Parts: sequence; C-alpha cells; structure tokens
Amino acid sequence: MKAVQVTGYDEPPVLMDVPDPEITGPLDVIVKIGGAGVCRTDLHILEGQWREKSGVVLPYTIGHENAGWVEAVGQAVTNVRVGDPVILHPLVTCGLCRACRAGDDVHCTNSAFPGIDTDGGYATYLRTTARSVVKLDPSLEPAAVAALADAGLTAYHAVAKAARVLRPVDRAVVIGAGGLGHIGIQVLRALSPVEMIVIDRRPEALVLAEELGADHTLLADSGAADRVREITGGHGAEAVLDFVGEGGALELGVACLRRNGNYYVIGYGGDLVVPTIDIISTEINFIGNLVGSYNDLAELMVLAAQGKVSLHTQRYPLASFQDALDDLAAGAVRGRAILIP
Amino acid sequence: MKAVQVTGYDEPPVLMDVPDPEITGPLDVIVKIGGAGVCRTDLHILEGQWREKSGVVLPYTIGHENAGWVEAVGQAVTNVRVGDPVILHPLVTCGLCRACRAGDDVHCTNSAFPGIDTDGGYATYLRTTARSVVKLDPSLEPAAVAALADAGLTAYHAVAKAARVLRPVDRAVVIGAGGLGHIGIQVLRALSPVEMIVIDRRPEALVLAEELGADHTLLADSGAADRVREITGGHGAEAVLDFVGEGGALELGVACLRRNGNYYVIGYGGDLVVPTIDIISTEINFIGNLVGSYNDLAELMVLAAQGKVSLHTQRYPLASFQDALDDLAAGAVRGRAILIP
Amino acid sequence: MKAVQVTGYDEPPVLMDVPDPEITGPLDVIVKIGGAGVCRTDLHILEGQWREKSGVVLPYTIGHENAGWVEAVGQAVTNVRVGDPVILHPLVTCGLCRACRAGDDVHCTNSAFPGIDTDGGYATYLRTTARSVVKLDPSLEPAAVAALADAGLTAYHAVAKAARVLRPVDRAVVIGAGGLGHIGIQVLRALSPVEMIVIDRRPEALVLAEELGADHTLLADSGAADRVREITGGHGAEAVLDFVGEGGALELGVACLRRNGNYYVIGYGGDLVVPTIDIISTEINFIGNLVGSYNDLAELMVLAAQGKVSLHTQRYPLASFQDALDDLAAGAVRGRAILIP
Amino acid sequence: MKAVQVTGYDEPPVLMDVPDPEITGPLDVIVKIGGAGVCRTDLHILEGQWREKSGVVLPYTIGHENAGWVEAVGQAVTNVRVGDPVILHPLVTCGLCRACRAGDDVHCTNSAFPGIDTDGGYATYLRTTARSVVKLDPSLEPAAVAALADAGLTAYHAVAKAARVLRPVDRAVVIGAGGLGHIGIQVLRALSPVEMIVIDRRPEALVLAEELGADHTLLADSGAADRVREITGGHGAEAVLDFVGEGGALELGVACLRRNGNYYVIGYGGDLVVPTIDIISTEINFIGNLVGSYNDLAELMVLAAQGKVSLHTQRYPLASFQDALDDLAAGAVRGRAILIP
Repeated sequence: MKAVQVTGYDEPPVLMDVPDPEITGPLDVIVKIGGAGVCRTDLHILEGQWREKSGVVLPYTIGHENAGWVEAVGQAVTNVRVGDPVILHPLVTCGLCRACRAGDDVHCTNSAFPGIDTDGGYATYLRTTARSVVKLDPSLEPAAVAALADAGLTAYHAVAKAARVLRPVDRAVVIGAGGLGHIGIQVLRALSPVEMIVIDRRPEALVLAEELGADHTLLADSGAADRVREITGGHGAEAVLDFVGEGGALELGVACLRRNGNYYVIGYGGDLVVPTIDIISTEINFIGNLVGSYNDLAELMVLAAQGKVSLHTQRYPLASFQDALDDLAAGAVRGRAILIP
Repeated sequence: MKAVQVTGYDEPPVLMDVPDPEITGPLDVIVKIGGAGVCRTDLHILEGQWREKSGVVLPYTIGHENAGWVEAVGQAVTNVRVGDPVILHPLVTCGLCRACRAGDDVHCTNSAFPGIDTDGGYATYLRTTARSVVKLDPSLEPAAVAALADAGLTAYHAVAKAARVLRPVDRAVVIGAGGLGHIGIQVLRALSPVEMIVIDRRPEALVLAEELGADHTLLADSGAADRVREITGGHGAEAVLDFVGEGGALELGVACLRRNGNYYVIGYGGDLVVPTIDIISTEINFIGNLVGSYNDLAELMVLAAQGKVSLHTQRYPLASFQDALDDLAAGAVRGRAILIP
Repeated sequence: MKAVQVTGYDEPPVLMDVPDPEITGPLDVIVKIGGAGVCRTDLHILEGQWREKSGVVLPYTIGHENAGWVEAVGQAVTNVRVGDPVILHPLVTCGLCRACRAGDDVHCTNSAFPGIDTDGGYATYLRTTARSVVKLDPSLEPAAVAALADAGLTAYHAVAKAARVLRPVDRAVVIGAGGLGHIGIQVLRALSPVEMIVIDRRPEALVLAEELGADHTLLADSGAADRVREITGGHGAEAVLDFVGEGGALELGVACLRRNGNYYVIGYGGDLVVPTIDIISTEINFIGNLVGSYNDLAELMVLAAQGKVSLHTQRYPLASFQDALDDLAAGAVRGRAILIP
Repeated sequence: MKAVQVTGYDEPPVLMDVPDPEITGPLDVIVKIGGAGVCRTDLHILEGQWREKSGVVLPYTIGHENAGWVEAVGQAVTNVRVGDPVILHPLVTCGLCRACRAGDDVHCTNSAFPGIDTDGGYATYLRTTARSVVKLDPSLEPAAVAALADAGLTAYHAVAKAARVLRPVDRAVVIGAGGLGHIGIQVLRALSPVEMIVIDRRPEALVLAEELGADHTLLADSGAADRVREITGGHGAEAVLDFVGEGGALELGVACLRRNGNYYVIGYGGDLVVPTIDIISTEINFIGNLVGSYNDLAELMVLAAQGKVSLHTQRYPLASFQDALDDLAAGAVRGRAILIP
C-alpha cells in the first residue's frame, strides 16, 4: 500500500510502497483510511520535536486523526464488522489496567499512539484494535469527521467536563476560537445555556465565534479582562476554557476568573505561574485536559450526527501530502486539511 | 471589657478597657470568649502585612479563632440560646447572595472577618451573628477547640474534598505535618482508608504523623519524590495535600503526583510554576482551598466530639497575650497557644 | 386590601377586605402582587384535602405561585429594593438549619408555605422574606412568570438534576406534556442534547411537545413501551421523567427504563409498586422530586429571560377568581390561569 | 478433573469426572480453584428457581464465588501470570460495549455468569477471562476471601456508593447484620465516621454488629423506627442500607428515612410499595444495587488486606459438597461455607 513515511528528521516525508498491515492480535482491526487529518503536531514531528518523547524508530507513517472503513478484524472482535464506517480513538489501550477498567482510557498504563509512536493514517490502511473504533452514523462521512478524532475530542472532553458543573446563571470565557476553540464553542453551545464570552486576537475568528453561538466576543487586547469583569457584574467568569495556553493567554484568563472558578487548561506552550496566595485566597482551580475517552468520542459523534458540531475541511489526495503540509505551515488552510487516500 | 487591640503597626498590641459589644442587628450574637487561638496571622497583622488588604481602622481587636458561650442574641436568632457553648465560623456572611444560598459561605460577596477587618476574640466578648455560631457537643470545651475554627476548618475542608474522590487503592501524600497538617492527617485518617504518605522536614513531626495514622513517613529531602514513586509502584500518588506551599514543597509535590492526580493547594507563600504541557500531558489538577463552610465546621466538631481530631493546647491568661505572641514567634509553643479571658 | 380567602371547606372562597400585611421581622418583604397562578392544588385546598396536612386556621388567603414588585422591606433586607420586580420562591425558610446552610431550602426544618399554611397571593399584597424573592430581569413581566414559581420550579429542579448526568448518546422519556411536563420539555431542550421521547394520552399535547423540541412523540397506549424499546435499540431509556405519577404512568415508565437507569418521580397520585428483585437485578433508581431551591428559581428565570422557557397565560382580574377556578376545574384554561390584582 | 454438577433439578448434584477446561479465546484464563463459596443461590439453583432465568443446559458445574491461582492464560493476557493468586469477579464481560467502556462492568450487554449460566467453581479448575481476575495481595489466602467475590462485592458496592455522599454528622441505618450485612457494616466502618445504627431480628447478630463497629444496635421489633427517630433527633437517617428486602424490612426502612434521604435496596424478595405523594413530598430516593465492578472488587481486596473486612469461613473438602449444602440449608454454617478442591 501507499504510506507517507518519516524517513529522517528535518527532511520531507516520503510517499512509499509498504506492506499492508496484517491482523496479528485477536482484537486487531485493519481500517481502510477514508480521511486523515493534517495537524500541526505532524509539522512538529517532522522537525524532530517528538524524536525523544515518542522514541519511534524510523521510518514510520504519521497521521493521528483518522477515520475510514473496517477492512479486516481479529478473531475476538465483536463490536464492528467489515465495511462499517468508523472513526478512530487516537490511542490503542490495553483494556486491563485500572484506568482502562474505570473508562479512563487516556491514562491507560500500557497504550500506543498510532501516528506518533507507531504507524498512523497517512496511508491506505492502518492497524488499530477493537477498543479504538467508534462506529459512525450513516449520515457521517469519514473524511468529514476525521479531524474530530484528536483535536475535536480534546475540545469535547474539556468542554463537557466544564458544562457538567456550569449552571444557566454562570458565565464561561473561551480563549481562542481557532482549530480546537471553534469546536469547543460548538460543543459548549450544544451542552449548556451558559453565557459565553469568546476572546481571540483575530477579528475574523470572532465573527465565526458569533455565528457559532457566542453571546459576547472580545478582542484579546489589554482591556479584555476589564470588559469581562463588566459583563460579569464585577465578579469574573465561573469558567475559563483556555484553548491557547501561551503568549499572554494564561495571565488574561486568570484575570477573568471568578472566586471559586475553574480554569481549564487545554492549549499549551507557556508556563502557568500563579502565587499560591492567589490560588487559596480566591479558591480557584486549574484543571488539566488531555484527549477524551472512547465514550467521549462516541458522544461527540452524536453531536456531529445531530449537525451540532461541524468542521470545514480542505481535502487533498494522499499523494499531495506535501501541499497539505506546506499550506498548513503557511496558514493557508481554511478549517482542517484532510488527506484522502 | 478587656480587649487586646492593635493601636499601631510594628508596635506591640495593648490590653485596653473598651465598651462591651452590643446587639445592633436582629441576627447578632454576643459570645463570651472561652478561648481565642493565637495564630501566625496575628503576628503578620502586627507587622502591618494586612494593613492594606484588610483596610481595618485602628485601634481594633485581633483574634480570629474563637469559641465560648452565647451571652446575648438578637430578636431573629433561633438557632442558639444564651448559655450555649459555641465555636465561631471565622466569617460573618450575608446569607442572601448566590454563594451563601448555595452553602458556599466562604465566597459570600458581602462578608466580614472578625479579628481581621473588624473586632475579634482577644477580648472578653465578641459580636458575631447567628449564621456563624456552631453549637458544641457538651463534651467539648470551648478553649480546647477554638483553634479548630480557622486552621482546623481549612484542613478539614481540603481533606474532606480530597477524601470524597479517593478510593481504598489510592495513595495520598501529605506535605507538612505542622499546625494545619497534623489536623489534616487526623481528618484524612477519620474519613478514608487511603494509603497515607506524610512528608516533613522535621523528624519529630514525622513521629507525630505516624502516631496519628500515617502509613509511611518521609523526610523532605532530595530523595523524597523517588521514594514516593517506589511506594506507589512507579506511578505517583492520586492526591497531594500540600500544607506548606513554599520553599520547595510545590516542586516536591508535583513530582509526587500521578497522572490524572489532584494537587490540593492549602499552604501558601511560594509561586506555583508549571509548564502547561505538563498539566495537559498528564492531565493533573490544582485545587485551591480556603477555609470551610459553616456545615464543614459542624462536621469537624462531630469528629472532635468523637475524639478523632484533637489539638494540643498551651493556655495563657488574656493578660499574658504578649507571652503567647512571643512564644509563637520563638517557636516555643507546642500545639496551639490559646488565650483565656 | 382585597384578598380571596378560604372561609370554610367545600364552599366557595370569598373576596374580602382585609388589613394590609405589615413588616414585622427584620428580613420581611411585602410584595405588591403582579400575578398569582391558579393551580389545581387550590381546588384541592377548597375541597378540604389539605385541611389536616396544612393545619391552617381559617379564614386565610390562598395563592402559592406569585410574582410582583417589592412594596416594603424590613431593616435587614439588602438584596432587593422597593420597586424591584420579583418572583417568589414558594417557601419561606429559616436560613439557619443545616439544610438551609447547604442550599437545600426545600428541606428547611422550620419553613412556612404562603398560600398553603399562611396567607398567599390571591391578594393585593403578600408578606414573604428576603430569602424568598428573586429579582426579575427587566424583560420579564411578573404576571407572565408567576406560574413558574411553583409548577415551573418543580419541573426545572427535576429536569436539571437529570440533565447533569445525561450524555449526548442517552435517551430520556418524558411522561406527560401538560402543565408541568411542557415546562420540563423546554428545560430539558435548553439543558441537554439528549434524544427526547415524549409520551402523552392527548394527541394535541404531543403536537405541542414536538414544537417544543421533542425528538419523538408517542401516544400513551399499550404499545408505547415497546416503541420506546425499539427507539432505544432494545435497551430502554437512561432516564424517565414522570410528570404524571398515576393512572398507569408508573407501570409504563418502569417498562421504558434501561438497566442502571433513573426514574424521576415528579407527578403523584398513584403508588409505586416494584418487586425488589427487579430493582436490584437491573440496578434502577427512583428519584423523588419536590420544588427547587432559591438558586434553582434564579436559574429558571435566566432561561425565561433567554426566551427558552415560556408559558401561555390566560389572565383574570382578581375579582373574577371564581371564573378562573371554574375554568380550571372544567379544563377550559389554555396554559395557566393568572389572577391580576 | 472433579466437578460438582447439576444433572437435574430437585435432585442432588453429583461429583463427576469431567474434562479440564481449555484455553479457547485469547483473553481466557484457567484458574485452579483454591476455594469456592457455598451460597444460598446454589440451593435455589438446585430447586430449579433459576432454570428459566439462566437458560443453562444441564449438566453444568455450579459455584459463583471463586478464588484460586492462575493455571494457564490465553495469548492476549497481560495482567496476570501463571501461579498468581486471584479472586474472580463473578461476571465475564465483553469489554467493548458502552457500559464496559465506562467501567460499569455489571451492565455489560454481553456478559456470562460462571456458576449460573456457564460452568462455575465447585471444581478443580474454572475458565474465566483476564477481565475477571483480580490479583491478590500475598497476605490473602484464596479460600479466605472467595466468598467476598459475590456477596462481599455486592455489600461493598452499595456501601461505598452510600459512603461517598455521607458526612460525619449523618446517620446510616443498616437493616440486617447477616451474610451481606455484616460485611456491609465492616465496609461502612472502614469508609466513614457516620453514626451507624444496625437493626436485626436476632440478638446475636446485634452483638456481632457492635463488635464490628455499630454505634447503636436495635432489635427489629415494632418500636425500632421510633427508636431511630429518637436517636436522630426526630428526623430519621440520611441513609438506609437494606440488606434484607423482605418481611417487613422495607416498611421499617422507609419509616426510618429522613427527608431527602437515600434508601439503598440490596436484599430482595419483597415488593417496594410507596405512595408517590410520599416520595415527592419528602423527596426520598430508592437506589438499586447489584454486584460491584472489577475496580470495586480490587478496592474491597485492599480493605481485606488491611484487615478491615474479614469473614469467618467453615471449610469442606470438595467431595463433602453435600454436607456443606445441607449445613447451609439447616442454618448450621457459621460465617460462610467454602469448598476446598
């Protein structure tokens, strides 16, 4: 089959002919890729940023946001059949550790991450397991939802966690209406009637945020925190959902937070620096957020099938992977770039 | 009556004759003080550290950990009667804001803090309200429990929050077995069979921790985090309860935390500094903790009446307040210093 | 002032001239009634059904769903001012018992219930306290929301409780799209993207349910439970919200419930009869629901101000109270009858 | 191997020579039985009560409370090794349905139940899967804990659920200090400082309850509910844990419950009959309880290893199975009868 492989760091990936993956374990599932999201993390992998963290042996195939159709299944697979359209949870988990047994897949003590530390989805086929395939509603096309597998799932996980404790009188500040953030806005609107304030540096992102249901939109300038205080009667917001996590977002976000409020850290890059006296005297919380669980992904697919969460996609044939990567690096992709094998 | 008043910052407080407090509001309660805890915050007030934060007008009476007997009540008071032994919740709250209506007294938007921003309990009498008096079990002497009103309530609030999500297989690290910490250890032992690891710099504090029910005790040296990893099978602890919050405690605590773990910030002084990539990639949470609610204080008094939480007290007549303050500053108090009017 | 009073059971109430209520306690609030809901419970009171339960001494004024404007306040009232438009929480609570201190107003151990056991709102003025007045958004007219004070608050309380544990993949069955039920449907649609199945005996109620956001509507006939099984893939619904509670609704509801599902008892009249073997072998729960808390009412008013929850009202001058009661008894009221003093 | 098989209903089971079980699936685990609990359910099976419910084909081997040592494992088993001492979760679950993926094993939509609908543990060996084996602490002997696998796990599951919402000021009534109940009492004492009131018909059960930590013990006579009211200041208990579920226990339990209280249905046999008006006017909840999850069993084993939960066992060689069954039927077993192959 065809696969886009990393053959060395700081050099372009290469489209190669490689053997098709085969069923080797009883729970294995081979998926024919219908669409693979092209993500900023892929650029970072190619630059070598993940070299030590992933420990992957080159060459290998990248691509960690995948959807397609079941091509073959191992002997113990009972939840999908050949031909089923599926989206792939990004992790391959053991199913036997305490975290897996609690439904907390992401903290499996024995997981693999296709596209990061094993072969991913920039390819005709990918091998995963029965524990990572969520069957799609017939109304959903794999290529249209592939990018929800990782970026979307992270946004869903954090926003759903916040929505469970927010009440109609509360206010939520969303920082960043970009890739993850604009999914987060859609999820928050679907799950909660909370008053939503979206902050971004880019006016066009705020236009989109308003279309997606934001109640207020603010430019991320020096007056933004004061404006949030005004909107919230001087108190600040019960929740801050930070999809940026660097470049001043954290300072802004903390300044927007109400006493007893929750700060959801989703984006990353910067350092969280807060005096402990401020944490205890206002009793605020900082909540980490990684990608969601298998059941979270199933729930997100329900929202997608209901038309409540959608993504704009810009599609490229698999052979044009370099165009997709270049466009992404140049900021020339509207929505998400998707490779179609 | 007699009252120890701050007459100027950076000068010793003075025992003065002042008018007795009077009932002015319908929910007012005058309490005859049975014991007033002498707290490190009192030293900080005298040094002027709270001058701007509290905005209090001098002279005024300090003392924010109080218990005694009801002396007089306003017309609308129905929950206590003259003569009842009571411990005082440290805040006087409005009862009408959304936080008060949710049982979240500490975030009342219109509260006062006797001993900090209004007259406190280094005195014969103190005025509070019906919303701040918790009736004591006959077995509890006011002077013996006074110091649980603030320090103890903070420890209870944080530990009870942690205990509600800990399971028997989990591990909790307690950093600091001093004033708050040694109450926290007793509360944790009363509320949970979790495996408890206590870390302190002082060997004698660890001896006490063991007596109070710690399963493991560790000196706070450079090998402590590694030792916690060993005890926890390499994973770290599900909860860290940090009663120190400065001087290396935070770095140590974060190094002891398991993926998906909760870090309870209770002590303060230092800065929390954590890269956001570490927060999201391990999905850890930082939970702020202030003093507990009125109902929390009632619960803590149940544990005290059951003999599950106790304090060593060193008592001084009110007139010897300066000895108590000096002993505290010199580290010469075993347990808590209590003034007896 | 004018007031509609019960002077004897099984005889019509009488419009009388009675003294205006006066401020007697520090937290008292006198409200000029803008609208008083006419409720089926009022008919039951007149028939004597509440005679012993309420223990009220005749004559007294009925009316327990009230909204209006603040006319006068006691000395300790700080949350509203004369002239403020307000809706009244149905209970007058003590604010000092453990339940009140936990935000659980409804289980106050020392409460009164205007219109049931003390004078209510079929009158020019009513006396309540600061703890029972929720300030209205300027967009909300008292007469338009009065009926949300009790019926609406009960629906909100139950549905919000359910919504906090429902996920997008789940299904909720609503039994009864009448007075309470049609508010419950609106609240559920505002709070959750859950798949909603509404069952009622009256086809016209199902038409309304569909307009309000039901995903499926079913006639309450002998095939309804089977149809729910079909819609839910054979499993049943994760939640059943029963606004009827009699006449076969319970048997139908239990038959619609999934393993590990929650049955919310809201309507009443019949007996719950379930073999314990069925409760434990499927691990189902039955959850009681009374009226909501003060904060619940504030939240419901947010949904009302957002236009997400509304009621059709049929208004009568106070003097025409008998017409309103007769119309209600005859089933001739569309939406809720409201008396306007 | 040897196995005690049901060959027909209403006739004694027979010790037979049957083929050893073999690994057929990748996650299979063969366990050499160290102890198999003899349970009242086994008597019911022999009487034919489960004939239709289980649909099992005769002959088959009974025994659903099992512990022992791993004898052989399938190719995909990674959590245990040959020789490990293990206790067996009573169900064999699929690991792929939504319930399994949420950690809610008991509601797996595709489970089997060894000893009930497939071969159980009255035998030398039993086949289960990797998803059902919990590794034992070296201090725990399989025969000593086997009976915790089902009866104990049910008690743990219900009590831990209750303990998570109970606070130190609350009261819990335990009805029934027999097989399940006396484990429940130990678990409740390990997890919570709640005031515990135990009710039983048998004075000797109350003596045991007191030894295990009950604060009050009451004979289940006509005055018991009044006595609970007295102990609880007239309010009733925040939780009732009913391990009996028949013969007057339900009526007694409901009479002991406080407003807003939770009634945990664990024992069964009778019907729950409650007017809906009583459920809504006091806002009480009825909570169903089946056996616990895999992680619950791991937690219970921690309490067992800490010495906080233990059982008296009366041991019989496998060949004396009929004596064990007869003794159980005659009420002549102290604690739990255990078969030792």
